[in-house]
Parts: sequence; structure tokens; C-alpha cells
Amino acid sequence: MSASVQLIGLDWGTSSLRAYLYATDGKVVAMRQRPWGIRHLPEGGFSAASRGITAGWPPCTIVAAGMVGSRQGWLEVPYVTVPANATAIAKGMLRIDAPAHLDMWIAPGLLQDSPANVMRGEETQIMGALAQQPEHQANVRFVLPGTHSKWVTVSDGRITAFDTVMTGEIYALLMKHSILGAGVSAEGQQSVPNDAFLRGLRSAKESAAAGAFSRLFSSRALLLANQLAANDVPEFLSGLLIGEEFRIALVRDGGDNSVPLCLIGDASLCERYIVAATHFGYAPPAVIGDASAQGLWQLAATAGLLAQSTTYDFSGTDL
Amino acid sequence: MSASVQLIGLDWGTSSLRAYLYATDGKVVAMRQRPWGIRHLPEGGFSAASRGITAGWPPCTIVAAGMVGSRQGWLEVPYVTVPANATAIAKGMLRIDAPAHLDMWIAPGLLQDSPANVMRGEETQIMGALAQQPEHQANVRFVLPGTHSKWVTVSDGRITAFDTVMTGEIYALLMKHSILGAGVSAEGQQSVPNDAFLRGLRSAKESAAAGAFSRLFSSRALLLANQLAANDVPEFLSGLLIGEEFRIALVRDGGDNSVPLCLIGDASLCERYIVAATHFGYAPPAVIGDASAQGLWQLAATAGLLAQSTTYDFSGTDL
Repeated sequence: MSASVQLIGLDWGTSSLRAYLYATDGKVVAMRQRPWGIRHLPEGGFSAASRGITAGWPPCTIVAAGMVGSRQGWLEVPYVTVPANATAIAKGMLRIDAPAHLDMWIAPGLLQDSPANVMRGEETQIMGALAQQPEHQANVRFVLPGTHSKWVTVSDGRITAFDTVMTGEIYALLMKHSILGAGVSAEGQQSVPNDAFLRGLRSAKESAAAGAFSRLFSSRALLLANQLAANDVPEFLSGLLIGEEFRIALVRDGGDNSVPLCLIGDASLCERYIVAATHFGYAPPAVIGDASAQGLWQLAATAGLLAQSTTYDFSGTDL
Repeated sequence: MSASVQLIGLDWGTSSLRAYLYATDGKVVAMRQRPWGIRHLPEGGFSAASRGITAGWPPCTIVAAGMVGSRQGWLEVPYVTVPANATAIAKGMLRIDAPAHLDMWIAPGLLQDSPANVMRGEETQIMGALAQQPEHQANVRFVLPGTHSKWVTVSDGRITAFDTVMTGEIYALLMKHSILGAGVSAEGQQSVPNDAFLRGLRSAKESAAAGAFSRLFSSRALLLANQLAANDVPEFLSGLLIGEEFRIALVRDGGDNSVPLCLIGDASLCERYIVAATHFGYAPPAVIGDASAQGLWQLAATAGLLAQSTTYDFSGTDL
């Protein structure tokens, strides 16, 4: 294929690096992925990684987002404080001068003062999701499940507040290192949420204001009392921890589950969150994929980088 | 010294084994400790461990409590369901026949049906504490801080309900394996709770019904926002997690902090709980040590084992 291109986007996290090459209309015409997260850089570091992943592509303006802008990243880009819209985020971008990248920008993360909270990368995904589904500008809660799940409130196109729940990390720690995972196979986790997952959700809900932290040990107690099979422990814990996210959200909203939810993330993980959302009385959330690519383009556009950037002809096969 | 003795008590947990030799009046005349928890047995297993730790002592009746009665222990002693007093626990004891131990008994643990919960060993400590401080029989909440902290409600001499919060285990996992402990020295934990500990307590309290699980990541966010020193992270997390125990307790009691608390455990750990109790508006709890030794004696007495047991003369120096 052949296209006129004008931007490269880098989604640069802790464990992986993705690059997008955009046509002048914003369509992604080429995409590459490397295991070069900021903690797993190739020899030559950030500069070599960015040159490597864009090798053979035209020398377009580059916009990057994620942990690459953190203290451990290429250039620390100060957080922008919420509330923040695309314009505020774009204004916070910093330009990096590197020999091979004459025009490269890194997006800032977002900071919430109280309760103290930070994000890097998710703000870009959300801007991408808002561009795809402008009807969500008005009032929506974006949920980005994962190692550190983010629950992000958007109101009138601005990110106004967010919570982080360390669901994925705690789940992995409990299964791998705690008494709860002792003698339990991690393969017990099914691709489709089963009854034990629902039981975990129910336990989180029943815990009410005491919270799921007060129920963690029940996983062990149920096993010892022969009321939970060892194979079901992973699903039970998954339900308990994901349920805790919804319990917290309902506390924040005073029990109001009419807030529209929108999921951004991996499809099989999102499936769990759809089941949980229904269990907690929410309407089934929409799921948005590929939000980073859209978000990087959106930030570049908002920052005025597209207006000034050179266009190149590109004939590539690496999509 | 010389004494007339008639009972041996074994406090047999996961990581250590303690033995007490009692005079006929219940005083401990000799005590030994070995690293022979049920997961670290010497060659020859349970039998060798019990013979080893009592070597040279008279062949008294033995009462054991703790994980030795679990599925991974010497003999699985079925749980007794709460509510349970000393009589119910004593009735649940099982006798073990082993060549070198003609009269050895193992105490049961306790089971709570809903929310599912279990304990093994703490019930014996509580019976010991009640024997030491009979005024607590009426109405008290025993708090046994540790890897799996127990909050145990006693009413009219019976254990009626209990919670387990995995405070110690989660703290260790977070410090050792999670992003929260990354770049943070575990030596930051002070012997006396400092301002960062108080800040953690405050954060747990402020989290209200959302709970401290929703605040864990704030430890990282505060660090990144230069609002918390790396050295203060261990104390902050300690305060947040211990505070969560008190927050949960207050939810259980509908906000009533007039329930008298009584701590059983390690003095320096109890010091943290006294600070936390005050922060959450409780009267400073009493602290009871050495409760296991008293509890084992108490269970033997309640089971009628003392009435039947032989007395021996003992002259020992290993106290």
C-alpha cells in the first residue's frame, strides 16, 4: 500500500513499546511492537529503541506517551493536575532533542492532589476513546482494568478525578506469594468467568463498608472448611478483587449505579468487568480497543503539531 | 530449682515450636523454643520434634495447640464452630497415640461459618488471657496482631465471632514484591511509630467506606509527587494497613469505639496498635503477653486432664 503520512506515535510503557505510523487523515498505516519497555531497553537505550522501532519509516514528527515521560523515562515530563482536557494535556507536552529525532514530543501524565493519585498513558487512551465516541464527552466513567486499574471520571470532555486500584498486581502477589495461593494452581483461572468468580463478586458486594480486604482470608477459610475447591480459588479471588473495584466506585458515587461505564482494555479482561458491572447493577459497559493510537493522534492534533508537520510518501507492508 | 510438675504444653505453629513445663499450681517452671514449626520439622517429624523439645523432662501429659492440629499437622483436629467457650474447645481436643507420648492431646481450632473464617492457636491464647484477666470474660474485643491479624469478640466467656485481616502478610508482600516497595528500604520501618505511620492511619480513616485498598496506590503517587519520602513509605504503609483493621472494626460495630480492646502479642507490634487505637478514638488497650502458656494450662484444666494426671518431681535449669 501507499499513503501520505505525517505522524509517528509511540505508546511507551514499562514492559513494551508500540509504534504507529499515521496517514494524513489519522488512519494507522503501519504498526510495530517491541519488548522495549522503559525497564527493558535495548543497548543504546531510549534513542536506540526509538530509532529501531521506526527504522525504515519516514522522519515524521513523533508523539510519545506513557512511562517514557516518568522519572525513570527518557525525559521527566511534569504531571498536569486534574481537571484536565485534551488542550491542557497537549500544553503539558515537552519536546525532546535527540540527534535522530528532530521533532519528538512526550505527553505528560496526570496528577490528582487528594487523594494523591497519578497516571501516565491512560490519559492518552482516554483522549483517544473520547475522539472515537464523542457522545462520552459529557459524563462517563472510563474503566481501564489491569495491573493498576484506573477508574476515571470524565465530565464535559475533561478528566475531573480518578481512582487507582492495584487489582492486577495484588491478584498476582496473592496467587504467587501468599498463603491464599499455596497449593492452588494458577491454571484454575478460566477464560470465561465461572461460578467461583461470581461467588467472589458476591462476597465483595456483601462485605459492604468493611470492604473486600476484610474477606481475603475467607478464601483460605472456605478451602479449609471444604466449601471451596482449590481449583476455584483463582476465580474466587479474581471476583473478590474485581468486585472490590465496583464496591469502591459505588461508595464514591453514593450508591448511584446509573453512571455510564466505558471499558478500555484487553477483551478477555473486559469480559470479567462486564460480568461484574451487571452484578453491581450497572448497564453493560461499552468496550473500546486501540485507544492509545487514537489518543496519540488526538494529542498531536490538539497541540497543533499536525498543522506544522511535513508529510511524506510511504509504501510499507509492516502493518 | 525443684518442683512438683504435672503438665507439658506445646505451642506449635507454622514456624516455631515452644514447650512449657508446668508445676502443679500452673506456674511455668521450664520453657524451651525450637525452630521446628510444622513446616520445618527435624528428621523424624512430629514425633522426633516433641521428644526432642521435651528431652529430660518428666513424661507428663501433653497438651498442644496451633497448626499442629491442622490438615498439614500431626493429626487433623476438626474445627469447633463459634460461639465457643473453654469447655467447648476442651471437648474438641483429640488424643494422639504415639509410642513416646502416652497421653498427648491436641486442641481444635475455631470455625466461623459466615463470613467464613478459621483460627488455630489464637483460641488457646484467648483462653489464657481470659484466665489471667477474668474481668474480660463479659465483653471484650481481643486483637492479635500479626501475619494474619485476628479481631475476636468475647461475650460472657465465649468467643462469638472473629475477623481475620491479612495485614502482616500483605505488608510484607507489598514491601518485597510490589511497585510500592520499589526503591524503598525496608529499614525505613522504625521501632517507634513516626509521623508517616500517623499519616497512614489518617489516610485509612479518611478512606471511610471506600477503604484503604482504594488508597494503597497513593503511597506511590505521593512518592512521585514528592509529597512522601522514600524512607517514609514503610511507615506510611504500616499505618495504612493497621488503620484499615480499625476502620473495618468500626464498620462492624456501627462506629461504636467504646468496645474495650485487649491486645495479645509482641510488644513492639502492640505499640503500633495502641497508637492506632487512640487515633480511632478507642481507649488505650491493655496488652497481654505469654497467653499461650496460660491457655494450654487452662484447656488441660477444663478438659479434666489435670485431675487425672501423674505428678513428678523436677529439678531443672532450662527456664
